[in-house]
Amino acid sequence: MYNRLTNLLGIRYPIIQAGMVWNSGWKLASSVSNSGGLGLIGAGSMTPEILNEHITKCQKATKLPFGVNLPLLYKQIEQHIKIILRHQVPVVFTSAGNPKIWTKTLQKEGVAVAHVVSSLKFALKAQESGVDIIVAEGFEAGGHNGREETTTMVLVPIIRKAMNLPLIAAGGIGSGRAMLAAMALGAEGVQIGSRFAITHESSSHSHFKQRVLDSMDGDTILTLKELTPVRLIKNAFYQEIKAAYQRGATKDELVTILGKDRAKLGMFEGDLDQGELEIGQVSAQFDSIKSARKLIDELIMEFNETFRSLKSM
Amino acid sequence: MYNRLTNLLGIRYPIIQAGMVWNSGWKLASSVSNSGGLGLIGAGSMTPEILNEHITKCQKATKLPFGVNLPLLYKQIEQHIKIILRHQVPVVFTSAGNPKIWTKTLQKEGVAVAHVVSSLKFALKAQESGVDIIVAEGFEAGGHNGREETTTMVLVPIIRKAMNLPLIAAGGIGSGRAMLAAMALGAEGVQIGSRFAITHESSSHSHFKQRVLDSMDGDTILTLKELTPVRLIKNAFYQEIKAAYQRGATKDELVTILGKDRAKLGMFEGDLDQGELEIGQVSAQFDSIKSARKLIDELIMEFNETFRSLKSM
Repeated sequence: MYNRLTNLLGIRYPIIQAGMVWNSGWKLASSVSNSGGLGLIGAGSMTPEILNEHITKCQKATKLPFGVNLPLLYKQIEQHIKIILRHQVPVVFTSAGNPKIWTKTLQKEGVAVAHVVSSLKFALKAQESGVDIIVAEGFEAGGHNGREETTTMVLVPIIRKAMNLPLIAAGGIGSGRAMLAAMALGAEGVQIGSRFAITHESSSHSHFKQRVLDSMDGDTILTLKELTPVRLIKNAFYQEIKAAYQRGATKDELVTILGKDRAKLGMFEGDLDQGELEIGQVSAQFDSIKSARKLIDELIMEFNETFRSLKSM
Repeated sequence: MYNRLTNLLGIRYPIIQAGMVWNSGWKLASSVSNSGGLGLIGAGSMTPEILNEHITKCQKATKLPFGVNLPLLYKQIEQHIKIILRHQVPVVFTSAGNPKIWTKTLQKEGVAVAHVVSSLKFALKAQESGVDIIVAEGFEAGGHNGREETTTMVLVPIIRKAMNLPLIAAGGIGSGRAMLAAMALGAEGVQIGSRFAITHESSSHSHFKQRVLDSMDGDTILTLKELTPVRLIKNAFYQEIKAAYQRGATKDELVTILGKDRAKLGMFEGDLDQGELEIGQVSAQFDSIKSARKLIDELIMEFNETFRSLKSM
């Protein structure tokens, strides 16, 4: 399974664990890296001090490469970047913002930069900014998402055809089957979020993990498109949003309903009613909570099994 | 590429051309069947007389199996069924309605029944009704669609895991790459709509074909979810719908805006502003209008090339 992406990232398997707010701290990231994938610390829910602590702990827990996911709209981004550079983190996945601003700064210090996009237009902009890797994320992905609603199945071949950069597929991938499908579509690796969110090592609340495990197809929705589009579980909080839409609420009213710290409340503190439960559609496929290592072993096993079954066609 | 699906349908390649209103008459269906796939006549836009004419012409144009796509909510469905049975059409694809009502009637006369679903719940209902084949259609598909918004990447493995019926993937498939991806996800065949809608043999208007060819990612949207959800190109007609949503229009107002015969106006008569231009997200990938035979040859070639490139990993 070696290719230029695994080579560039220094990993055994082309599996990237997505950096997810309130889920992916040093425990998850180091476990994934120790199991042959690339673990990402999700900096979006961390203060600079907390990020510093997680990187330090992660470096103690693994000698293998890991990275940081950095939302570019983050307020204290300069401090985050400084910490990342000071610790010589080898790779940063950026999202939600303009890749032109920080890519060169990171690359000058030897950091590889991957940028997450939801459309061809943004992929071309990222390429122009000189990023090393493109992550093409489809509509089915959990958490913050693009406005175009283009699915992984459609988006990956479009970007593959338009450019020759190393390409990672994201959104809807939680099995070895989907991993192979992503490779067929033209990706050289996969970024998996939701499935890692309910591993033992994920820092999210056990109530959240159980709710994700119980979810069925149709349980999530991409909403709040006027603010930042986000895919979440349709819980009581979502019903409030829905009711607001039905009475024709303004953008300001939606902002008020959203309030603050909803994601923390839902995913980290386990309030399944009032919290924001960010997860992808693929959550409908999950049948158990397991360790990151066991998950990666199973992904690879199913990938190989599926490949063999196709060969015998 | 033989498997139990190609065997059941008596076709060479596991490629089904979707039955599409105003696009797939006898010309397209017979060309597809003559090229090794399964052509479907789209009965949804035909009166019983017209359907009768198209089946008659299709039987003259090909000795190979073809089928009819039948929306189960169609008003004159009894007459359609009679015509299908009288002509001994070997396979019917049903959608948009309850498969319990007509499946046995068709099967008793030797017709194989495939039913299109958008969720696990509907797949289980279809299995209970005794259908022979399940078509799992994702959110990215053009035209009428489910309310769950589950994408092909996520839906196909869920249904594959839950049942052992022959399974066809639909939605987002317009290339050999995506065909192989669908197989990796657990499908035994693919239903392709949008890509066939802009073949020479499609009966849609040349203006419509050109507009589809020109479309980019993000140009389509799934809308009118309160009525029957439909994926269409965001044209002037869609802007009216959007404005209605923004002012909090009622369901009745939406029905009034939709009016009648919009799909015919857009796809068959070529009114790109006021017509309903139903097409899938995958339209963003298309780069030319070609014959059905050339398309099928290219699909198979790209499928094989992609397979070989994965083998060399």
